[in-house]
Amino acid sequence: MKFAIGIDLGGTTIKGAVMDSNGVVTNVTRVPTEADKGAPRVMENIVALIGDLIKASGKTPQDFIGAGVCVPGFVDENGIVVGGGEQIKGWTGTDIYTPIKNKYGFNVSAANDVTAVALAELMYGAGRGVNNIVCFALGTGVGGGIVTDGKLYKGTHGMAAEIGHIVVETNGLPCNCGQYGCVERYASATGIVNMAKHIVQLGSGWDDCELCKLIKTEPDAVTCKLIYELAAKGDKLALRVNEDACEMLGRAIGILMNTMAPDRVILGGGVMMAGDIILNEVKKTSANYCWPAIYERCEIVRAQMEEDAGVMGAGALAFEAFGG
Amino acid sequence: MKFAIGIDLGGTTIKGAVMDSNGVVTNVTRVPTEADKGAPRVMENIVALIGDLIKASGKTPQDFIGAGVCVPGFVDENGIVVGGGEQIKGWTGTDIYTPIKNKYGFNVSAANDVTAVALAELMYGAGRGVNNIVCFALGTGVGGGIVTDGKLYKGTHGMAAEIGHIVVETNGLPCNCGQYGCVERYASATGIVNMAKHIVQLGSGWDDCELCKLIKTEPDAVTCKLIYELAAKGDKLALRVNEDACEMLGRAIGILMNTMAPDRVILGGGVMMAGDIILNEVKKTSANYCWPAIYERCEIVRAQMEEDAGVMGAGALAFEAFGG
Repeated sequence: MKFAIGIDLGGTTIKGAVMDSNGVVTNVTRVPTEADKGAPRVMENIVALIGDLIKASGKTPQDFIGAGVCVPGFVDENGIVVGGGEQIKGWTGTDIYTPIKNKYGFNVSAANDVTAVALAELMYGAGRGVNNIVCFALGTGVGGGIVTDGKLYKGTHGMAAEIGHIVVETNGLPCNCGQYGCVERYASATGIVNMAKHIVQLGSGWDDCELCKLIKTEPDAVTCKLIYELAAKGDKLALRVNEDACEMLGRAIGILMNTMAPDRVILGGGVMMAGDIILNEVKKTSANYCWPAIYERCEIVRAQMEEDAGVMGAGALAFEAFGG
Repeated sequence: MKFAIGIDLGGTTIKGAVMDSNGVVTNVTRVPTEADKGAPRVMENIVALIGDLIKASGKTPQDFIGAGVCVPGFVDENGIVVGGGEQIKGWTGTDIYTPIKNKYGFNVSAANDVTAVALAELMYGAGRGVNNIVCFALGTGVGGGIVTDGKLYKGTHGMAAEIGHIVVETNGLPCNCGQYGCVERYASATGIVNMAKHIVQLGSGWDDCELCKLIKTEPDAVTCKLIYELAAKGDKLALRVNEDACEMLGRAIGILMNTMAPDRVILGGGVMMAGDIILNEVKKTSANYCWPAIYERCEIVRAQMEEDAGVMGAGALAFEAFGG
């Protein structure tokens, strides 16, 4: 059995683990990122965590094929951060590979955190058995990852799969990225909550709905999770919001199907805790935005990666690059 | 020097040639497809043409690394046509590899014709020196091809890069594919001519324009080529049509940049005979539909493949698969 170290760098916590080639994760460990103390300190914390993981596992550095590191932002082919991850002071320009290599002699592979989860899905989750997948991460924002011909597709400078910023509505809602009508504005947790509030603001006829009452009395208590709990109970406004979100998500899925003709489109992230209500709806809406011949050969399924998605993505990076 | 046979199967003509590993094409030969006589006859014609090419080149089958075949429709990894190419009777289900292999002992690689041209651009044209490209073929319709990590990306069942059917306008013009607002409806030669006529139909104020007069007097004489000739002379309606076409094309380019983060987007096909007037305009419009960090790292350039694009794409398929 071969082993890799997987490191998932977040804005507040660095999560690390030992992963074997079957995707079994052990020794999960969390340390503070200390993002405010700047990029060199963050790298020191990563290096120290790797040391702790080696020790905790009872192995030597030679027992590992290397390390995978998932980070916010974009990483080029030399392991240099080229942008993004603004929550970490001085992150752009950081060399991820050298400090780890120097300390443990490890081969290192790094990539954007959301992108790398697609590789974990391919190797250990909902993408097993196929070669071409597109993954959506429906969370606070919408991110994604693409696997082509069995390999994680990073794109030039590691920037591929910014699929949350696919424009799906002409003259749509303004997005932080400067565009209008990005799918992220409609199908992220934030977008879904905002849409619900917007519908109440615009129109009448929703007063009977529990969701409407909540929006009017306790707007800050309205979360995406709550909206889907109400949708499950048949709340009309919540169901309408789901329809709108799935219309927009379906447009993005259709575009990606036409572009990539993947075997599977995999939907994950916190929003997908809602499950079938989204899955069933986007299966309908995406069909309107995709060539039938491609649509009928592509499955839309739910992601299987859960709380360890990040470290598994990181471990998968190492196995893809150095697993032999 | 190594050699391959390249076959470009069209609805009326099969074009074949010998190509060396530098992309130099010789012995270009055309024979009728005889599409109406059905798929087996078409395959016989391809096999015979390959024989003629070997003979004409003065080489033996052993001098070739194999053959590449570009076809209308979609080809799976076993060389079986899985759909498309309806102009050839009984085309779906056709085995492209076996008859050629049986006759000459050749390795064969086949792909969709438009898709394969992207590989020729990568190896011999506007994609040289980079690994990730997206190619648009702006012709009667809009097709495309994608190269990821230096390899032609065919997608599952060979159906990738149907980028002409990316929906770029909410509730837009109806497309033959059943969708509304496909970029093909706006940025193909057909789409451009239809848009010009549509603008004249809808609004006044164009009567001074030569293009408007032509549309009113000789509508059937209006071609995309003519529109761009008039645009070059400053015809206001022609310039407006170009702006509209480039707005829609820019949306699709922006979506593909966000998805693929390619090194280059390459624009080819008959419409691009117009050249810089399109290139300069889409550089502006696509910026509105793409993350700035990705946009600034991606070039939009004109294709270099010309009349031999198809056979060079076919030859490139052979060199990619069997060139060693």
